[in-house]
Amino acid sequence: MMTIHEAAVAMRQKKLTPVQLLQQCLERIERYEKSVRAWVMVAREEALEQAKRLTRELEKGDDRGPLHGIPVGIKDIFDVFDWPTAAGSHLWAQSIARKDSVAVERLRQAGAVILGKTVTTAYASFDPPPTRNPWRLDRTPGGSSSGSAAAVACGMCLGAVASQTGGSITRPASYCGVASLKPTYGRISLEGVVPLAPSMDHVGVMASCVRDLGLLCSALSDPFPTFSSQNAFAEPEHPPTLARIGGLFLDRAEPVVTDAVHQAVTKLKAAGAKVVSMDPPAPFAEVLQRHRTVMAVEAAEFHEHRLRRHPEDYPPRITALIREGMETSATEYVRALHHKDTLTDALIEQLELSDAHAFLVPATTSPPPSAETTGDPAFNSPWSYTGLPAVSFPIAWTDDGVPLCVQLIGDRFHEEELLRWAAWCERVVGCERREIPTLRS
Amino acid sequence: MMTIHEAAVAMRQKKLTPVQLLQQCLERIERYEKSVRAWVMVAREEALEQAKRLTRELEKGDDRGPLHGIPVGIKDIFDVFDWPTAAGSHLWAQSIARKDSVAVERLRQAGAVILGKTVTTAYASFDPPPTRNPWRLDRTPGGSSSGSAAAVACGMCLGAVASQTGGSITRPASYCGVASLKPTYGRISLEGVVPLAPSMDHVGVMASCVRDLGLLCSALSDPFPTFSSQNAFAEPEHPPTLARIGGLFLDRAEPVVTDAVHQAVTKLKAAGAKVVSMDPPAPFAEVLQRHRTVMAVEAAEFHEHRLRRHPEDYPPRITALIREGMETSATEYVRALHHKDTLTDALIEQLELSDAHAFLVPATTSPPPSAETTGDPAFNSPWSYTGLPAVSFPIAWTDDGVPLCVQLIGDRFHEEELLRWAAWCERVVGCERREIPTLRS
Repeated sequence: MMTIHEAAVAMRQKKLTPVQLLQQCLERIERYEKSVRAWVMVAREEALEQAKRLTRELEKGDDRGPLHGIPVGIKDIFDVFDWPTAAGSHLWAQSIARKDSVAVERLRQAGAVILGKTVTTAYASFDPPPTRNPWRLDRTPGGSSSGSAAAVACGMCLGAVASQTGGSITRPASYCGVASLKPTYGRISLEGVVPLAPSMDHVGVMASCVRDLGLLCSALSDPFPTFSSQNAFAEPEHPPTLARIGGLFLDRAEPVVTDAVHQAVTKLKAAGAKVVSMDPPAPFAEVLQRHRTVMAVEAAEFHEHRLRRHPEDYPPRITALIREGMETSATEYVRALHHKDTLTDALIEQLELSDAHAFLVPATTSPPPSAETTGDPAFNSPWSYTGLPAVSFPIAWTDDGVPLCVQLIGDRFHEEELLRWAAWCERVVGCERREIPTLRS
Repeated sequence: MMTIHEAAVAMRQKKLTPVQLLQQCLERIERYEKSVRAWVMVAREEALEQAKRLTRELEKGDDRGPLHGIPVGIKDIFDVFDWPTAAGSHLWAQSIARKDSVAVERLRQAGAVILGKTVTTAYASFDPPPTRNPWRLDRTPGGSSSGSAAAVACGMCLGAVASQTGGSITRPASYCGVASLKPTYGRISLEGVVPLAPSMDHVGVMASCVRDLGLLCSALSDPFPTFSSQNAFAEPEHPPTLARIGGLFLDRAEPVVTDAVHQAVTKLKAAGAKVVSMDPPAPFAEVLQRHRTVMAVEAAEFHEHRLRRHPEDYPPRITALIREGMETSATEYVRALHHKDTLTDALIEQLELSDAHAFLVPATTSPPPSAETTGDPAFNSPWSYTGLPAVSFPIAWTDDGVPLCVQLIGDRFHEEELLRWAAWCERVVGCERREIPTLRS
């Protein structure tokens, strides 16, 4: 499957139309969806109408930019006009949105074809979804943006909108072997999105390469004045300085992950990158526990009344999270909020003191585990918690054919630089792009 | 059935509890609902829980004010947390709101019992609803706030939230013989309300007497600093000066209506009111046509895409309105907006020049017509269009047992004075309060 950039170029060279591109995506849905179950709904006819209109626009020379005619998937916690927003709830299955979420509105304006709604875990939490990992059907695609990750991996769409409160973007993207951006907290509007924990909810994107992430993020976010498609494709002037976080943090990683990261770092160094190692700052020791406190309390604030009324509409893990939040004392929550600020400042200071452009850390603790879980978000929650932007991309394949990824974490609102460094690293590491195998479990 | 004020007094005298009051309402629903069909849903159990909690609060001395424990009905275009907002649409029948509209949130905070959703015409437009006029089942209750008006008339609830873009509050309230307030444009938040024509959409209230309207409006609207329950019950210091609009305007009224208004005016004069007569200002001649233009264009802006996709979900009159709006030229719309401002200024000037406190005009052109229509909004649209506040209340009964009402229209954001003048007029006219007869068509 082509990248967004490749498709955009082909369209300007009159070698491809939005309608043809959509048909390629629909064929892949036909081929893989029965096994992968990435979609809550695919709006075939409506998407075809959009693609026809966008094809006519291009023929007339009305060019909306790099997303013109690009089919995208929308995680089913985002409102799309006239479609239900179920968010994994049974009772919300027919809750039709009266208007687009801001993210979807932006994508439409940029000319994207809104292809359908992708599967989310219930309320964007941890309960395993019906979706399967396209590389191994017995494995999880990760959560909560399970469908978005699996759909992009299969080439059912070229990009997808996702969201993250713990590890809901980076983790599924990595398990499925696609690139992802969880931008700075607040970068993309949350209006029209079902909340999980509003102070840590992030809208982000997935695509098949890092540069495509920039094209998507540029369309989605307002305060991105310097971010143009041109900049997204400019090489950095010199190789980056990357800070590796070791110590307690890295102890959670499986050897197969640390080995893959080690090999990638070797290639980066050989290409001229400077890599410094450091221990995490002291407050890092508490990050997972404090993150859980904030998430539990804020999820409880939103869901408490519905959980009381409709316990049958809440699977076990989100139920446990809400109950935990209901039982948390306010002082514990306030302490977590203070800790959140302290840790964020400490991390930014550490970047500055080491003259590093970004932290480089594994994207996940392990390859995708079995489908009975959605995997461990321990390497992702810290960036949801601190709101620092994180870009992830594949670096290797395991012997049993599943992808492994790394992530770069940068300073707040420095997505543009971060994506350029990440694109450089992605090119240098040069992880093979594979086609989905004949599906097997 | 008692008024909100009477119930509030009885509760403070420990003669009534919120639970008992709710049970009286539920008994009336049991008795009349099958014939009247005022409700889309009645949340019996949930309302009972609310009433129990509010009863305990009062016992402990936690008093939320005059709406504490008062059952209210909510027009089904307002979002109520965890209930569907169907707005008369079949496709939206299971569209569950993720949060309360601002109006409902305010009522909850004021201690009202949110009893259920009342019937609206489709999309708050003109297509006849299933609801019937409780005084004569072969007549219309009016529209679009049909269920709110009928429910209050039957004592199924003591107050109701409604909305008006043409004549959707004053007309049904008058046909059903209850008091209503359509406040100044912008007085009560429209957040969480399905729009019809946003520049003329108003949230308003219905109750069984004018003073109750003040209690409801005071809870619903933010910029009401001087409006306290105390003021609502203070008599004005002297009788009002009222301006009667004659000329072309009044020509649409049936003789039974003009006779009733004439008799009411005679009583008001006898009690000391000064009544001056005037022709409407020149721009008034175009008001109905221009109002229709604004309504059609703005309704089309919201509904156009859904109408194209789901024509089967749009009954004939709203369909015609939207199509009209789709075919209207932008210049015609802009001209209407200019006319709207001109007329509003002219009316306010006319009030000032005549030293009048309010305009006094019939609330409807006729008694409630047959249930095949929702009646003529010609006496109401001008106040939706200009955004001036309008209070209506019953003045007489026709020989065949249906009510007739009058309305007072005041200056912008002068609801407090307007309601006090209206309460004075209501008392002086002294229209008999009747119980719903054994229902017959």
